[in-house]
Amino acid sequence: MAHSLKIFCCFFFFFLFSTLSIIPLSHQLEQHPLDSLTPNEFIRVQAIVNQSHPTTINDITFQYIGLNEPDKQALISWLQNHRPTPITAPPPRQAFVIARINHQTHELVVDLSYDNIVSDHIHHGFGYPLFTFQEQNRASQLVFNHAPFLAALNKRGLKVEEVICETFALGWFGETKQNGRVVKVMCYYLDGTVNLYMRPIEAITVTVDLEAMKITHFRDRLVVPVPKAAGTDYRESEQKAPFGPELKGITVVQPDGPSFIIDGSRVRWANWDFHLTFDARVGPIVSLASIYDTEKQEFRRVMYRGFVSELFVPYMDLTEEWYYRTFFDAGEYGYGLCAVPLEPLRDCPANAVYMGAFVAAQNGMPIEMPNVFCIFERNAGDVMWRHTETMIPPDLITEVRPDMSLVVRMVSTVGNYDYINDWEFKQIGSIKVTVGLTGLLEVRGSKYTHKDQIDEEVYGTLLAENTLGAYHDHFITYHLDLDVDGESNSFVKSKLETVKVTDQTSPRKSYWKVVSETAKTESDAKIKLGPDSAELLVVNPNKRTNMGNFVGYRLIPGSVASPLMTNDDYPQIRAAFTEYNVWVTPYNKSEKWAGGVYTDQSRGDDTLATWTSRNRRIENKDIVLWYTLGFHHVPYQEDFPLMPTISTGFELRPANFFEYNPVLKVKGPNNVRWPNCSVSSSGLN
Amino acid sequence: MAHSLKIFCCFFFFFLFSTLSIIPLSHQLEQHPLDSLTPNEFIRVQAIVNQSHPTTINDITFQYIGLNEPDKQALISWLQNHRPTPITAPPPRQAFVIARINHQTHELVVDLSYDNIVSDHIHHGFGYPLFTFQEQNRASQLVFNHAPFLAALNKRGLKVEEVICETFALGWFGETKQNGRVVKVMCYYLDGTVNLYMRPIEAITVTVDLEAMKITHFRDRLVVPVPKAAGTDYRESEQKAPFGPELKGITVVQPDGPSFIIDGSRVRWANWDFHLTFDARVGPIVSLASIYDTEKQEFRRVMYRGFVSELFVPYMDLTEEWYYRTFFDAGEYGYGLCAVPLEPLRDCPANAVYMGAFVAAQNGMPIEMPNVFCIFERNAGDVMWRHTETMIPPDLITEVRPDMSLVVRMVSTVGNYDYINDWEFKQIGSIKVTVGLTGLLEVRGSKYTHKDQIDEEVYGTLLAENTLGAYHDHFITYHLDLDVDGESNSFVKSKLETVKVTDQTSPRKSYWKVVSETAKTESDAKIKLGPDSAELLVVNPNKRTNMGNFVGYRLIPGSVASPLMTNDDYPQIRAAFTEYNVWVTPYNKSEKWAGGVYTDQSRGDDTLATWTSRNRRIENKDIVLWYTLGFHHVPYQEDFPLMPTISTGFELRPANFFEYNPVLKVKGPNNVRWPNCSVSSSGLN
Repeated sequence: MAHSLKIFCCFFFFFLFSTLSIIPLSHQLEQHPLDSLTPNEFIRVQAIVNQSHPTTINDITFQYIGLNEPDKQALISWLQNHRPTPITAPPPRQAFVIARINHQTHELVVDLSYDNIVSDHIHHGFGYPLFTFQEQNRASQLVFNHAPFLAALNKRGLKVEEVICETFALGWFGETKQNGRVVKVMCYYLDGTVNLYMRPIEAITVTVDLEAMKITHFRDRLVVPVPKAAGTDYRESEQKAPFGPELKGITVVQPDGPSFIIDGSRVRWANWDFHLTFDARVGPIVSLASIYDTEKQEFRRVMYRGFVSELFVPYMDLTEEWYYRTFFDAGEYGYGLCAVPLEPLRDCPANAVYMGAFVAAQNGMPIEMPNVFCIFERNAGDVMWRHTETMIPPDLITEVRPDMSLVVRMVSTVGNYDYINDWEFKQIGSIKVTVGLTGLLEVRGSKYTHKDQIDEEVYGTLLAENTLGAYHDHFITYHLDLDVDGESNSFVKSKLETVKVTDQTSPRKSYWKVVSETAKTESDAKIKLGPDSAELLVVNPNKRTNMGNFVGYRLIPGSVASPLMTNDDYPQIRAAFTEYNVWVTPYNKSEKWAGGVYTDQSRGDDTLATWTSRNRRIENKDIVLWYTLGFHHVPYQEDFPLMPTISTGFELRPANFFEYNPVLKVKGPNNVRWPNCSVSSSGLN
Repeated sequence: MAHSLKIFCCFFFFFLFSTLSIIPLSHQLEQHPLDSLTPNEFIRVQAIVNQSHPTTINDITFQYIGLNEPDKQALISWLQNHRPTPITAPPPRQAFVIARINHQTHELVVDLSYDNIVSDHIHHGFGYPLFTFQEQNRASQLVFNHAPFLAALNKRGLKVEEVICETFALGWFGETKQNGRVVKVMCYYLDGTVNLYMRPIEAITVTVDLEAMKITHFRDRLVVPVPKAAGTDYRESEQKAPFGPELKGITVVQPDGPSFIIDGSRVRWANWDFHLTFDARVGPIVSLASIYDTEKQEFRRVMYRGFVSELFVPYMDLTEEWYYRTFFDAGEYGYGLCAVPLEPLRDCPANAVYMGAFVAAQNGMPIEMPNVFCIFERNAGDVMWRHTETMIPPDLITEVRPDMSLVVRMVSTVGNYDYINDWEFKQIGSIKVTVGLTGLLEVRGSKYTHKDQIDEEVYGTLLAENTLGAYHDHFITYHLDLDVDGESNSFVKSKLETVKVTDQTSPRKSYWKVVSETAKTESDAKIKLGPDSAELLVVNPNKRTNMGNFVGYRLIPGSVASPLMTNDDYPQIRAAFTEYNVWVTPYNKSEKWAGGVYTDQSRGDDTLATWTSRNRRIENKDIVLWYTLGFHHVPYQEDFPLMPTISTGFELRPANFFEYNPVLKVKGPNNVRWPNCSVSSSGLN
């Protein structure tokens, strides 16, 4: 999605060092090697980089600062020696920095143990780093001093003070010459609404060079009606009767408090233990997720690291101002940077606990992001397991265990779209990932006010007068570094195959059997999910259950989509990592971001697809599972002026990981009683 | 699934007329024409049928008694004239009865307005009616007086008092001669567990003629070890340490009570209004579901009638005692008959309200089924819609509406398997249907105690010593008689098609567009869901939005599965309705049960597949959507001795039904406050 969030960073600046009483993620006493960078570390990184380029201090912009994760083997061996008391030093703390220094992209590793620069490499390849909020903000302000733009507004009868602009990544469409760090600026009109996205000012294209911070091109192609403001505002305060039915108060209560413990970035709940950290590019990172095996009386490893690696959002509108809208929300805009503060009692239920995080501003200084995560126990009314036995007199036997789970939520609002990211931990051993899409569509202004007027391709649904909801896709690619009971894992595709019975040995003519194939190399593990029935497993080929089954976890897909653009189309070349729903790679520390490190104007030479072309061996190795879920979004009128959430996700579920049902011995819940309560409902605000 | 539920009916008998203080579904003052039969009506039906066959009273068994729904057009015109005051008489109350009278299957329509028999037809075709609990119970007791069976137990060293038997439908495997009403009886061993399903006594086959109520065949093929009892009991009272971690108390509270109103079988909540009734064969029936359109200030029709039409559960084990296990849980066993009383605070949350229902016993007398439904508002912590706007100074604009929904739940325990059926109504206009599968696997006893010993096809996973979890499928077929803003609807498949751009008019090489096809006849609407991208809609071609879009509802599939048996295999011929995930038929009152009326030993001559072979016109007609969801179930050790729930479902979601987002004007929730509470958690029991 496009966006600029120009105000947002300012908003967060107010919090800078003024609200440190909110306990940040990485503020615990004993720092863990996987913890996000602390405010102090951001400041030191900034100082070290600035000092290393002293003549150019004013020309340094920090496009990304994040933890340079320690070497995995070093971390694991440290962890194994770490408990109960640390006997070895932790791996060194390092930051990974992408900075523009004198108009070149530097990739630096800064060591925070020794306060020095370990490496400083200039990127000469294709593509540019993430945008900063500050440069997007400055770029989108330039138009207001650009006479042709003001004339264009005037021609349309629009008031300049009601115009809001934002920057859009340019993409790549086969140009051989590099464009430089250039963006397009598109504008919207408020004038009676806050829903700017429903009021696009169409057909004006402004091109801005971010390095020169100058407008390099301006075009006013034609005048298209700006859709009206009426009916677009979504604020409660602006709604008029008739209202929908009101519901009586409902809430969740935990009189004895939550059952989870947050200790710095470590979260423990029920049988789960994991770390939760935050990154400007990818948002939440769940690491070192282990589950306690009651029978074995030990924690067993499940996932070393899981996060959203990239989001690809191509629009299907080929008009001049739209064709290039093929966004990479993580690599271009920063999925973490776009996280928004969660609204208590609305974004998360009453029993939620909130956590903040820090990101670097363009000048390298830390910015606090309050309430970026919420963590809560979900009590949705579902059943974890049950049975009623009717066959044994004299009574019915009924055993039921309600389902409880732990949810970690972050919302990233990448301009118009709000993505609700849930990592859900279940007592049965599942990690369930859900993403909900809501917020505002990108709509195109149009002359049409009724479908019957349309006799050309308009690339979308007529949602309201002069308002076309453009067809588009969302592909979200997850990096899932599973370590099922240890690092050495294999990927197994258990295909369900029909067997025909032709030898009269059975009255049946057919059945299905399970044929398991272990992927030897990366090409064996590229899977487009479809009607072929198969169970997809990550197993540990070195560990077996007592019955002799390999211990494993199973990927249960939710709704999936495959790209419909042709493979030779430029956006699809850049997003070739969406071509398959499943990929498996051998662990490689540098392979984190499926669309490559430099996604802005990337050319597809550094993606999951190119990495796997080496066809490396993946059997009984430390492997990473990549999963892409997706939606093709055909807008409907219900999505106007704001979309109800639509969700999908996937589940990682134990499959012969435990010897038997791991929740068999979970006791039934206690009844929660409220004696002597006087109760009232009152307005939230 | 196999089952007999021999005790269950007895259990319910205790409630017969002794607990009528529990308000049954159909006990409201003004009866609605779609209400389930009342106890009094069951009694009258019994009396009328018995009187009509006076010489044969002792030979009458009632295999099914349910409401004979009124003619749809008559009902709709009555409804249209009914409000605000009834000006016409309601359609006549009738019962549909399937009875065995003198060993013939009679299909009777009994009129309850005139207390007479409207029709009495003898079924001479293939297939037999549902089993009654009573006859299954009697059949499964016969073995205990059968010397060869007792000898077989003796040979195995098993105590007869620890043996539990149940009856299994025979299926059909190409026999040309009819077998008569015959079942197989299989037995299990308790002796230290209540989990009889984990202790099958293999290789003994007893065949019982239900009409003669005699054993007609006995075979003891070989001795297979009975799996041990240890580790199979799932009752909390029988578990031993180490236990899983305990969670602190959590509950949902609604200090002002629920927001829904139940008036007889009518349920109103938020913008929804529907009827909820119960049927012995299919369980819950949701009818006359309408949604209030705040803008139009009127209720608009969505679904005339929706229910589970059939369940098909074929096992993939071809051994002599297993090959025929290809169950039709609704048509053979009664999905409603197998409903179990819901356990408050465990099967449903603290804010649930419970409802009972009635079914007919074999003698035609009503049996009350208490707590067969629960209804509750779900407060799962999800977000209905949200947006944070960062672009407009000086503050962030954040608007969030938490998601609330209304859930109607029934659990049907068809022998070993527990199906959790949810019909969920959402304020956004969606009807979301979920089915959760839990309970006990059917396992086969085996000599194997480790996977490495196995070098033959065993048709399943070795779950524990001597215990093979058989591969099987679950297909659940829903009858969804949508009436989107009226009866005349069309089925539209909007395909997303790639368009290649070769004329240099765009820097892009491709995009996708939407190509909508309206199904003219039934064959156009048979769809195997797969990777082809399409939106599936039921639209009203006579109603358009202000923008000119046809008003519609969209089917959003969840996980689907297609049959893997060959189409010419006998069980698949009987279950040909599972061949496609989606079918559309013109409304026909008699086409309710996708597997045919007489499913026991059916031959596939009366299924959804045969009905549609007429290829009737379905465009702009009163149409019915049939949707089949499914699982291929490969058991894992976590499913032993009891399976954690695995769920899937689908959503019916408004698609250009409303002019704009129907929950835009839903106000944010009130904060629920609890002043002056003293709080404690205490044991449930």
